[in-house]
Amino acid sequence: MPPQEIQEIYSHTVQQVLDLTGIFVFAVAGALTAVRKNFDVIGIVVLAEVTALGGGVIRDLIIGDVPPAAFRDLGYFITPLFAAFIVFFLHPQVERIYATIDIFDAAGLGLFCVTGTAKAFAYGLGPVQAAALGIVTAVGGGAIRDVLANEIPMLLRWDREIYTVPAMLGAGLVAALVETDTLNAITATCAAVFAFAFRVLALRYNWRAPRAWRRNSEVFEKYE
Amino acid sequence: MPPQEIQEIYSHTVQQVLDLTGIFVFAVAGALTAVRKNFDVIGIVVLAEVTALGGGVIRDLIIGDVPPAAFRDLGYFITPLFAAFIVFFLHPQVERIYATIDIFDAAGLGLFCVTGTAKAFAYGLGPVQAAALGIVTAVGGGAIRDVLANEIPMLLRWDREIYTVPAMLGAGLVAALVETDTLNAITATCAAVFAFAFRVLALRYNWRAPRAWRRNSEVFEKYE
Amino acid sequence: MPPQEIQEIYSHTVQQVLDLTGIFVFAVAGALTAVRKNFDVIGIVVLAEVTALGGGVIRDLIIGDVPPAAFRDLGYFITPLFAAFIVFFLHPQVERIYATIDIFDAAGLGLFCVTGTAKAFAYGLGPVQAAALGIVTAVGGGAIRDVLANEIPMLLRWDREIYTVPAMLGAGLVAALVETDTLNAITATCAAVFAFAFRVLALRYNWRAPRAWRRNSEVFEKYE
Repeated sequence: MPPQEIQEIYSHTVQQVLDLTGIFVFAVAGALTAVRKNFDVIGIVVLAEVTALGGGVIRDLIIGDVPPAAFRDLGYFITPLFAAFIVFFLHPQVERIYATIDIFDAAGLGLFCVTGTAKAFAYGLGPVQAAALGIVTAVGGGAIRDVLANEIPMLLRWDREIYTVPAMLGAGLVAALVETDTLNAITATCAAVFAFAFRVLALRYNWRAPRAWRRNSEVFEKYE
Repeated sequence: MPPQEIQEIYSHTVQQVLDLTGIFVFAVAGALTAVRKNFDVIGIVVLAEVTALGGGVIRDLIIGDVPPAAFRDLGYFITPLFAAFIVFFLHPQVERIYATIDIFDAAGLGLFCVTGTAKAFAYGLGPVQAAALGIVTAVGGGAIRDVLANEIPMLLRWDREIYTVPAMLGAGLVAALVETDTLNAITATCAAVFAFAFRVLALRYNWRAPRAWRRNSEVFEKYE
Repeated sequence: MPPQEIQEIYSHTVQQVLDLTGIFVFAVAGALTAVRKNFDVIGIVVLAEVTALGGGVIRDLIIGDVPPAAFRDLGYFITPLFAAFIVFFLHPQVERIYATIDIFDAAGLGLFCVTGTAKAFAYGLGPVQAAALGIVTAVGGGAIRDVLANEIPMLLRWDREIYTVPAMLGAGLVAALVETDTLNAITATCAAVFAFAFRVLALRYNWRAPRAWRRNSEVFEKYE
């Protein structure tokens, strides 16, 4: 039932290696959140799975690809367990290389916004909606992780470096490429690299998105 | 695949105008929540989209109408962006007319509980379940908004004017109308107006739902 | 469309009695949470429904059984209302017998992890993924309840007796039974009883899952 035309940007093997890499780094980020929140080993596993697979599962439910890919391919399921295992034993070391993790996480963000948008297109969604689902694929797992950890999702907060904007740019680029019939392995990689680089620069230079216009106006204060 | 018999209460154009109106006012409420929580522009857009479309997406996933209407009709998707744009620049003015917004929001509530129930019926659900999905359509988006903003959903709290009860009454009325084969544009509008008026009166006179019987009993206190 | 081979472990009547028992005790736990959080009667009903049906609805959406069983069988829907009604009037008495409730809740946990895994298998999922959905069926409703109540889900916290581990063991047992073609009413009951007993013992002896290895290391402290 899955219409595979656009989805197959890369060869199956390349696609799977990229997917598993993205899943792994997202799972590490989720597991580290659990360690920081003082959760037990079950909490570490749950947050690793949810962070890594949540965005893709929401996308697949919405486009009607059930059961979602995360529940068909065993590798998708095992990879977060492996990440949780590593974090459980090595979390001090992993924390020390967290700057490196951020780079990997940015790579996952770049990759998932591209493949998520392409998959939504392949299931017949329009360009704007496909791009929106690409963004959901990239940021949805992290949002569920933060909700479960009883925190405001990072993507909503103004005091965090921009996270959703790189995914928006990557997903928007893919939508434009599909519309102009120029999506292929090379252009898709360029879109993913662009989103990745934008995120890395945002981290490096603390780029933030603006809050509401005149947010500090006196009119507003009385509502706080 | 969508079985359209009952769903078409109104002509397509009327239905769409009503839908977009409801989506717009819900999106304004979501965007204002984001401004109050000091979220950035991305947070404003995300909460506007989620508040406006969340209830309908859950309903469509449950009845099996995928991709959900919100991901098929571009207007459904663009309208919250427009609302977010307005709130971003004009939020002090919008806050000032928040009493007016409450009226619009009540209109959205009345409309969505009616159309949500009718759509669930058209997909073959029983009257109780269809009414439940009508309520979900009306209050689900706001609940997701509050969870993302790390607050207890308004509909659960006893210190807020009743919000779910009007939706329950509207959805229950529609279920009764379908069962008695008397649902049409006029009776549906009456149900929506009734839910709307009930909500407005609840706001005006601070109607609240009761808490558990003898909630302040001494037996209970020791658990707090 | 539902492929019923494996799912029919018990006769239809037995299955339904067990399901409704599990739904009832989960609903009581949800309604009591609402009373403790000082929610109104609507909040009590919502948390009762969500706790009792949430896990099964997520499972059914993922395996593609829509509308979910909870929206087809009216009994599934009415039972939580009945539980909410009882808690609304009798909550001090119910609180007093909460230890008894814990036993019932453990029975629901044991039952749902078994039937959830079996149903996922019947829809074609692999053993690991089916077991994962069995766990989701058992603990998902409680997780949604805690998120709505703005608390960290019990299953993630290290300061609670283990809750997910019994479900994991029960679901894993069922997966092994299906793989070895030995799942029947007797072995399934044994798996459910095993998960149930494990949970009761965990409560009795305060069993807890470990936190991350060397969680208190000095390296970690600076991140807190």
